[in-house]
Amino acid sequence: MQTRKDYILSLEADKWLFQADMLVDKAHVVMLREKGILKKRDVVAILNCLDKINSDYFVEHALPSYEDVHTAIESVMIKEIGEDIGGKMHTGRSRNDKVATSIRVALRAELLDIIKSVNELRAELLKQAKANIDTVMPGYTHLQHAQPTIFAHHFLAYADAFARDFWRLMSAYEYINVSPLGAAAFASTGFPIDRERTAKLLGFDSVLENSMDAVSTRDFVIDVISCYANLMTNLSRLAEEIILWSSSEFNFVRVHAEYVTGSSIMPQKRNPDYAELIRARTGTVYGSLMAVLSICKALPYSYNRDLQEVTPHLLQATKTSAASVSVMKSMVEKLELNKEEMAKQAQVGFTTATELADTIVREANVPFRTAHAIVSDLVKEGVALKDNGKAVLSELDTFATRHTGKKLSKRGLTEKKVNRALNIKLSIERHNAKGGPAKRELRRMLRARKSDLVTDDKLIESKDYKVGRSLDELEREVKRKARIIKVKKQS
Amino acid sequence: MQTRKDYILSLEADKWLFQADMLVDKAHVVMLREKGILKKRDVVAILNCLDKINSDYFVEHALPSYEDVHTAIESVMIKEIGEDIGGKMHTGRSRNDKVATSIRVALRAELLDIIKSVNELRAELLKQAKANIDTVMPGYTHLQHAQPTIFAHHFLAYADAFARDFWRLMSAYEYINVSPLGAAAFASTGFPIDRERTAKLLGFDSVLENSMDAVSTRDFVIDVISCYANLMTNLSRLAEEIILWSSSEFNFVRVHAEYVTGSSIMPQKRNPDYAELIRARTGTVYGSLMAVLSICKALPYSYNRDLQEVTPHLLQATKTSAASVSVMKSMVEKLELNKEEMAKQAQVGFTTATELADTIVREANVPFRTAHAIVSDLVKEGVALKDNGKAVLSELDTFATRHTGKKLSKRGLTEKKVNRALNIKLSIERHNAKGGPAKRELRRMLRARKSDLVTDDKLIESKDYKVGRSLDELEREVKRKARIIKVKKQS
Amino acid sequence: MQTRKDYILSLEADKWLFQADMLVDKAHVVMLREKGILKKRDVVAILNCLDKINSDYFVEHALPSYEDVHTAIESVMIKEIGEDIGGKMHTGRSRNDKVATSIRVALRAELLDIIKSVNELRAELLKQAKANIDTVMPGYTHLQHAQPTIFAHHFLAYADAFARDFWRLMSAYEYINVSPLGAAAFASTGFPIDRERTAKLLGFDSVLENSMDAVSTRDFVIDVISCYANLMTNLSRLAEEIILWSSSEFNFVRVHAEYVTGSSIMPQKRNPDYAELIRARTGTVYGSLMAVLSICKALPYSYNRDLQEVTPHLLQATKTSAASVSVMKSMVEKLELNKEEMAKQAQVGFTTATELADTIVREANVPFRTAHAIVSDLVKEGVALKDNGKAVLSELDTFATRHTGKKLSKRGLTEKKVNRALNIKLSIERHNAKGGPAKRELRRMLRARKSDLVTDDKLIESKDYKVGRSLDELEREVKRKARIIKVKKQS
Amino acid sequence: MQTRKDYILSLEADKWLFQADMLVDKAHVVMLREKGILKKRDVVAILNCLDKINSDYFVEHALPSYEDVHTAIESVMIKEIGEDIGGKMHTGRSRNDKVATSIRVALRAELLDIIKSVNELRAELLKQAKANIDTVMPGYTHLQHAQPTIFAHHFLAYADAFARDFWRLMSAYEYINVSPLGAAAFASTGFPIDRERTAKLLGFDSVLENSMDAVSTRDFVIDVISCYANLMTNLSRLAEEIILWSSSEFNFVRVHAEYVTGSSIMPQKRNPDYAELIRARTGTVYGSLMAVLSICKALPYSYNRDLQEVTPHLLQATKTSAASVSVMKSMVEKLELNKEEMAKQAQVGFTTATELADTIVREANVPFRTAHAIVSDLVKEGVALKDNGKAVLSELDTFATRHTGKKLSKRGLTEKKVNRALNIKLSIERHNAKGGPAKRELRRMLRARKSDLVTDDKLIESKDYKVGRSLDELEREVKRKARIIKVKKQS
Repeated sequence: MQTRKDYILSLEADKWLFQADMLVDKAHVVMLREKGILKKRDVVAILNCLDKINSDYFVEHALPSYEDVHTAIESVMIKEIGEDIGGKMHTGRSRNDKVATSIRVALRAELLDIIKSVNELRAELLKQAKANIDTVMPGYTHLQHAQPTIFAHHFLAYADAFARDFWRLMSAYEYINVSPLGAAAFASTGFPIDRERTAKLLGFDSVLENSMDAVSTRDFVIDVISCYANLMTNLSRLAEEIILWSSSEFNFVRVHAEYVTGSSIMPQKRNPDYAELIRARTGTVYGSLMAVLSICKALPYSYNRDLQEVTPHLLQATKTSAASVSVMKSMVEKLELNKEEMAKQAQVGFTTATELADTIVREANVPFRTAHAIVSDLVKEGVALKDNGKAVLSELDTFATRHTGKKLSKRGLTEKKVNRALNIKLSIERHNAKGGPAKRELRRMLRARKSDLVTDDKLIESKDYKVGRSLDELEREVKRKARIIKVKKQS
Repeated sequence: MQTRKDYILSLEADKWLFQADMLVDKAHVVMLREKGILKKRDVVAILNCLDKINSDYFVEHALPSYEDVHTAIESVMIKEIGEDIGGKMHTGRSRNDKVATSIRVALRAELLDIIKSVNELRAELLKQAKANIDTVMPGYTHLQHAQPTIFAHHFLAYADAFARDFWRLMSAYEYINVSPLGAAAFASTGFPIDRERTAKLLGFDSVLENSMDAVSTRDFVIDVISCYANLMTNLSRLAEEIILWSSSEFNFVRVHAEYVTGSSIMPQKRNPDYAELIRARTGTVYGSLMAVLSICKALPYSYNRDLQEVTPHLLQATKTSAASVSVMKSMVEKLELNKEEMAKQAQVGFTTATELADTIVREANVPFRTAHAIVSDLVKEGVALKDNGKAVLSELDTFATRHTGKKLSKRGLTEKKVNRALNIKLSIERHNAKGGPAKRELRRMLRARKSDLVTDDKLIESKDYKVGRSLDELEREVKRKARIIKVKKQS
Repeated sequence: MQTRKDYILSLEADKWLFQADMLVDKAHVVMLREKGILKKRDVVAILNCLDKINSDYFVEHALPSYEDVHTAIESVMIKEIGEDIGGKMHTGRSRNDKVATSIRVALRAELLDIIKSVNELRAELLKQAKANIDTVMPGYTHLQHAQPTIFAHHFLAYADAFARDFWRLMSAYEYINVSPLGAAAFASTGFPIDRERTAKLLGFDSVLENSMDAVSTRDFVIDVISCYANLMTNLSRLAEEIILWSSSEFNFVRVHAEYVTGSSIMPQKRNPDYAELIRARTGTVYGSLMAVLSICKALPYSYNRDLQEVTPHLLQATKTSAASVSVMKSMVEKLELNKEEMAKQAQVGFTTATELADTIVREANVPFRTAHAIVSDLVKEGVALKDNGKAVLSELDTFATRHTGKKLSKRGLTEKKVNRALNIKLSIERHNAKGGPAKRELRRMLRARKSDLVTDDKLIESKDYKVGRSLDELEREVKRKARIIKVKKQS
Repeated sequence: MQTRKDYILSLEADKWLFQADMLVDKAHVVMLREKGILKKRDVVAILNCLDKINSDYFVEHALPSYEDVHTAIESVMIKEIGEDIGGKMHTGRSRNDKVATSIRVALRAELLDIIKSVNELRAELLKQAKANIDTVMPGYTHLQHAQPTIFAHHFLAYADAFARDFWRLMSAYEYINVSPLGAAAFASTGFPIDRERTAKLLGFDSVLENSMDAVSTRDFVIDVISCYANLMTNLSRLAEEIILWSSSEFNFVRVHAEYVTGSSIMPQKRNPDYAELIRARTGTVYGSLMAVLSICKALPYSYNRDLQEVTPHLLQATKTSAASVSVMKSMVEKLELNKEEMAKQAQVGFTTATELADTIVREANVPFRTAHAIVSDLVKEGVALKDNGKAVLSELDTFATRHTGKKLSKRGLTEKKVNRALNIKLSIERHNAKGGPAKRELRRMLRARKSDLVTDDKLIESKDYKVGRSLDELEREVKRKARIIKVKKQS
């Protein structure tokens, strides 16, 4: 049974924010000292106390008794070192800017991981594509066999979709990695704080200037969850295909044992539960997005308590997306293809009909619509478009005469050309326009995508490195500011 | 009563796509000719026929009888110039890539307009901010008076939020302005088409390479509607404030007569209907986003008819966002402020309490939490924090003694300092940290934002110009390709 | 390009409301006359003028020039018969209660149609179920073959789901069919109006009493769109199965030619576009729901202009749901089953494994988990569970010995019993628990569902009849009130 | 860092289901014994083991190591009493029907609580309404003063809205309280189970018959979260008003200290955090609804793992709604009104303008539109509509002459009548149409609503009682079935 006090808490979110909150406290205190706003000895006490608080024990046992993580830290500190000193940590700051800053710090770390994970998924897709540059499969539109294609082409399509997710997430990162710290309640402060300094110590790229904007906005949350929604949509489409492909009817792939489960009642089952959960959790992320949008709509400036309710949704969407990318990556890595069945199905359903129509256009100089109509008649009659060019040509002549009054064989179409059109591998090879499934294009795209991935990996590593270096500097400053007096104390 | 055939239509979307479809047809035909895939005389016939089709009459009267805009154009063309020639326009192309291309072309034009409109709104906000750099108002958190601030600070916060919307929309533009044309059904084509050429003629920045990706993805739609959702959220917050401010209780602003309506039953009403509709239509855009996400979830590759249902939502969200930005811009432009009432309210509710607490911290060297507690007691006792520094100091001394055993006046707090803290204008001026409401900061931000806006305007103009130049080239090519033969014909 | 005035319009919604608005006007005027609030001659003039206005011409040509349908009618009336009389129609009423009433009247008619349509779909599902009481098919969990079942069982499941939709929509009807008329702006009126009388004349079941509640609430819209969302979810699941079943890989059904389309480029395609669109439009209805919720959230009482934006979403969701049910009904009616393929697939994938395990439990008195483990081993070894009971028993003995140290044949399991377990038809027949696929249960359910449907049809007809009778009375009163004076005039 | 195994868990949901799962196990085992499917001694062992498992320790320490709650219970049981006996509990059942049943049992209990809570809120609203049957306040449309009203009228409107929520939740209850148990994986079972018996033992109203439907559907979840969404929307509107009313500008109410929080930086703040959180959590429930809809869309029959992801959203929406109703109830109970300020504001903004126009219609026989125009002119001129009937009449005459060529005082309008129209209390009393704010109507509605509430309370209590009686019977049966052998053992 929830109590009144429970209603105001969001404990999971507060736990998530704890480490970030610690960093924000440290950076703020270091700056207060540097600007001479706090005295040396107060800073030493505060920093040492923060160090003591920074523990799993605090998170599990102390934090839950307070209204939020910020209050918890400050209250425990006051208990430890007295209000006289402990109360000063909050100088020139408010919960409003602190929470906005902590969310950004916590989210940034997760986001960097997700982005790396997306790149790992891209790498796996490229690997599978490379390994399957000869694997023929039916290509679908409307879940109907349309034209034959190559598995590599299919997975390269996904790799490109996830490359765009990479870029979208990188843009979201830019909006996130700015510092609201120092905006205080919304009107900044009369203390001579240095917002650039705390921003630098916390690894932010810049300061989010306007102090009212800084505490009021959660547009970066909407932005990043929108990116997750797009990413999850892409994942859900791949998951759906894996589910279809691993059905008895398709039988194109075997999902690795780690990613299927059995049934409590049906011993023969290999259920693609992981793929189903990725599909389902896409809905969960949509729900988070809808929740955050509804919460933020029509809120007057500046801070309102409603914004607290945004954070758990951000957390949920972030964790869900991170785990989903990671699961998909391993599932793709271990996916076994049933190439034989794919190749067999590529023959079924007249997938070469388009090629045949195109050949008629090219070779017999017939308008596309007419060629389409001739082949359509052929298909409706149930003529198998498999191998017998001679038989097919003869049928085509019959239908062409109906449509155009003239046999195609009189317009230059030959048995050989029909045979070439009906040959799946040749047909695919002819599709060598930019981005098509012909081997030359597949090879070119594979090379280009791998090269892109190297560049993209470097970019994300550079972001990660920059943050890491700043946080290292912060820790050094914290140690230095805490040590000096310790030495003095010893003397 | 809907018929079965109606169910498959999306007429409004098709009308929207018509002009884009025309451009795509032209670019495709020009390229087919340049690559020698179509003959001169066929191209002349096709281009002249396209010119004839390009009319409002066609959109209103012919289009509705066909399954979609693509079919309508092709069918009418075949009727006009025969299947022999008219049927050839479709060579090396499918409805799948055509519709994906047309959506991008149509959306791009709208998006450029929206982005310009956002910048106009930013300009109006900056104008109002500049004009109100001395307008004192209460700043709110939780809709409670918190601290006094300056109207310019408030509107600069919005200007910064819309600046981020500008950048988000610019990123969305990048994902939109790539060409899927030539992907055909999903497997590209065996015809020697030139995808770069059609991309160039249509003003695209590049080719969306993988042909399966090109027809399957609608991530750019999710992306752009997400941007709209963020933009509308920002608009809804400003709309909410305008509604609040124009209430009898706030009485801060007078919305221009063009943006209020009367009541059929209450003659005295000045209802802020436009602001209410902006707020409401934010929900409409959320609905579009949710619809598109749900539709795209778990669709197997490549094209599925479901994607058709995405377009009307894109259209609705685009039109709604465009109109909302534009209405807000004019409403802001014509907003009259009741500065007197704002200033009066800035005095109400102890808005200087924070400043007083901060002063106690600074001047009497008391920890923030203690100062906070002292002022809190004062407020609870109902002491008016208005002008009488002497009386306030005396009360403060009483409470300070309770908390710390010592009077504040013994710690260095003077009547003069209390008076300074209680003075609203001085209090605001002291908030001169980066991004705060002090005049120096407001002036600096105003200058910087104006300068940013100039740069941003140039950027969007350069995009617009680049597209325009390409489309001009396309028209020139169309005219040239149509004229040459005409000349020959004359000879 | 939208103008400022366009922004305030919702023309499609206003057109939709026109007929309802006419009825509301008539009922209001009749009541005003009956209560003596308006004079005879004024009422005659008003009613005759309303009769004149009631035309397609008005809707297409006059309506679009006004702010909304209510204003349009009143303005045209004043133009026609002067403000002195025309202005009186609005006595004791406001746009707020009028629009709330018109929406309910318009929606009620659509809803009655949708409910009937749902029942027609149930009838078709029952027909197909009856015709396929012997059609064996694989039953799926996780899209994996699980156990064999009967097509009738599958479609009876859908019939039951849609029966619940029937009941939910009937409940929604109850919330809709109450009259807000007479609530005026929100505070009712000082005129001695009779709200019960107008409610009765308009076919409402009762009066929505509290006048502030009456104009403020749109909970009935949220309610009915939620019902649509549930209904569409059910339709989307059936649509998904039809799409899967009509794929080349499943090949279970042939969708009627009216509900497939060809491809512009692939002549062999039979794309299940209608099923795909039903699936997609489910997302559209979700979007409408999300929009309406977001719009209504946190609106203070009473009426706000935001509520205008609710109506177009209601209209869209209503039309979409109505058409989708109707399309599904015809598609199901004309669905051809490939029974041979279904039966063949029912054999694939060890669907009788569960039955075999159950048999071991029953006959050899082995715990379920152990039996499950034994059969699981068998399946993993790839033993075909088809027909050879002897071979299977021998294998089972081997695995049973491993698990339990004892052969199953020593515990009472016989070749005959194994054979019975492996026989699909027998296996299904044994599943005769309530609601199972055994023929006895199928027959019982078919009978019960048909009988329920008869009752449900009567219920909806009685609602329809009651409304119709009231509207007839209204028309009679209108004619009488208009005629009496005419007669007098003649005399 | 999440592991692969974590991805498949939904621990919070499983903990929530634990007690329900226990009940389902017991009912199933009792029935298996009654039908002779399990032997006495096995049943004794199983039931005693279940009793042992039923502990907080199990939930906190054993449960998290297993895939789900069902697996956890069974696995621990097998560990305790061996597979030979422990494995038999699962006879004739699957996880698919078990989880569907457990969700319904767990949800039912929560729902009964929520419904009672809604009725408590209704009771508080009626109490406040009764206490404020004389409290005049301004009534708003578009957040503009419209007409004066009575606070009781306002809160009665909310009471009526929540009464509809009561009925909607009661309907949802009907769809929830049916038993899927015995449907097994989806094809029921060959064991001679008795589904009616388990349904009865578990307090269900009936059996959800079709076994495929029983495990596939989650429509009851969509249904109940839709009801929550409607309920939360109503709560959010009341929360919004409380936030507005407690602002310094409105100053209509004082929220009890338990439901406000202070500020870390602004000592004077009384932030209505609870009301803000209710408003925000409305968005959370919308998110849950959207998630569940997206997850269920287009799932083929029967069970898919996606359905697992539905439960956490159901849990979240249920807990959030339950707590929000309860918080609102207490907040309303302790709300203090500032009647003086309300009455003062009721005078502001010409709220009697409508009444004045109506009076002109009635007394001077002028059409409503004309009267409206006359009063409108008056208002625009800024004439105060307060007390001076003589002055107002003179002005009215001037404007009336302009509009109609005749003074109103020549048409029967007197100073006394004008004064009566301008008197707020009299004006409200005149609004005595059904549902209006006149005292007679308020009293009538108060009486009727209280009486309804008594009936509604009885209805929910009868549901609760029926469930309780069944569960008591279940416990008795469990004890009897476990005791018999114990007795034998003793002998």
